[in-house]
Amino acid sequence: MAIERFEFDEEIAVEPVEGRAEAYAGSFGEGWRIGNGVNGGVIMSLATTALQARLDREGAHGDLLAFSGYFLTPSGPGPVEATTEVLRVGRTMSTGQVSIAQRSDGVLVERMRALASFGDLDTSAEVMRTVPAPDLPPPEECVSAQEAPPTFLAAASLLERLDLRIDPATAGWAAGHPSGVGSMRGWLRMRDGREPDPVMLLFALDALPPVAFDLGILGWAPTLEFTGHIRRRPAPGWLRVALSSQNVTAGLMEEDAVVWDSEGRFVAQSRQLCGIRTPR
Amino acid sequence: MAIERFEFDEEIAVEPVEGRAEAYAGSFGEGWRIGNGVNGGVIMSLATTALQARLDREGAHGDLLAFSGYFLTPSGPGPVEATTEVLRVGRTMSTGQVSIAQRSDGVLVERMRALASFGDLDTSAEVMRTVPAPDLPPPEECVSAQEAPPTFLAAASLLERLDLRIDPATAGWAAGHPSGVGSMRGWLRMRDGREPDPVMLLFALDALPPVAFDLGILGWAPTLEFTGHIRRRPAPGWLRVALSSQNVTAGLMEEDAVVWDSEGRFVAQSRQLCGIRTPR
Repeated sequence: MAIERFEFDEEIAVEPVEGRAEAYAGSFGEGWRIGNGVNGGVIMSLATTALQARLDREGAHGDLLAFSGYFLTPSGPGPVEATTEVLRVGRTMSTGQVSIAQRSDGVLVERMRALASFGDLDTSAEVMRTVPAPDLPPPEECVSAQEAPPTFLAAASLLERLDLRIDPATAGWAAGHPSGVGSMRGWLRMRDGREPDPVMLLFALDALPPVAFDLGILGWAPTLEFTGHIRRRPAPGWLRVALSSQNVTAGLMEEDAVVWDSEGRFVAQSRQLCGIRTPR
Repeated sequence: MAIERFEFDEEIAVEPVEGRAEAYAGSFGEGWRIGNGVNGGVIMSLATTALQARLDREGAHGDLLAFSGYFLTPSGPGPVEATTEVLRVGRTMSTGQVSIAQRSDGVLVERMRALASFGDLDTSAEVMRTVPAPDLPPPEECVSAQEAPPTFLAAASLLERLDLRIDPATAGWAAGHPSGVGSMRGWLRMRDGREPDPVMLLFALDALPPVAFDLGILGWAPTLEFTGHIRRRPAPGWLRVALSSQNVTAGLMEEDAVVWDSEGRFVAQSRQLCGIRTPR
């Protein structure tokens, strides 16, 4: 009997490489593209899967708490290799490193290098303070990514995997009218019903269109560095994601993301540094 | 004739290790402690010096743009070794890795692992939008770190190197009356006149007392992960630093920092994830 996996789990799965304890092999599919590249959240999620498998083998079980990835060259569909290193296995937390590489003309080229820490998200559910979830119109009153222009959809096969509904108040850019506020909010879930967990939250932090769109910056905005913090195990159901950016300078901008679960609880946040061409 | 160096430059200086192109040696002094450990900003600045020296040798000159450090074990005064790795030398940006280690009972123990990117902060001074600098009372009307209780000063030799003036509105914690807002603001400069540059900005992002103090969380709040972005070359003179935290959950909180230069321009920002014991 075949075991069916959700699309996301299929995409980020890795297998140990025989004879090399630190190496894992996977493959990026065609279905998670943004333009010609593979979505950054998928790359980071696969890296996390590999590092977690390695740490598990060292007896360091744990949930993803923090992930910092530096993107070196664009990833494409095809085989991918993850090389892991265990930095520290502690009583409550473990930290490792992972390098993602692909063969290009026979040469192994590094795509991303990352550091990540793992711990136990269940040790305490105590909350002293958190950012409240934004009020969003219900998903059925939001702008579905399915309504995006066909040329946009064709360039982003990723959107076929997601059920993404953008708050109409922050979707003006899709009709050529960016608000200029530097904000984007929406609902997100996997189309095939795959429920959120810490690794899926890492993906969710980087799944929306760039917040730069809302500033009228529509070009390619490559991620140089991305750091995400997972702060709580999410409840099943829709996630709420809010993006913002306050500083756009010298060809660089940051994109901040916050994620809340279906019960409105703060579960994850991130900041990434992006290269941009500012409009003149 | 002796060449005089500023205290900060002396502290973060490294020398190449003969016969090992990737290794640099330095030493943490007694003068930059917080409690029993070495200040995290000093550790990150020394790591940056080493990585920059290595990249320079590869022809990859550049200013620090982004730095992500994962702290593994506490650093103490004494010899320190930095092991560098060049990940990518690009036309406009270069990325590397650096590991900081110290000998403990004869065994080399890793203190911090970091990734960092370097580029040219002068390519464009164009600013589209930035967070405005906070209004602060003039330095002479702020609370000098010198006014801290002697026991606190004795535990933080770091404060003797700095001219740090906290906005009275966010200094209530020093008198046992934290505001509960989760905010701290102040002026910062080096006492010996060392002017800010990109590496000193990295230090400045982690130089103030923990913002946790303003939430009444006075215990030890170790940094698990720190990511800083340097966005502009700073003008000489006083820096303004603002700390905030919005999410305190499950033994973890983030501390966000923003730095403006003496001309009131946004120059750097960071976020770190700290372990805490929340008051009950």
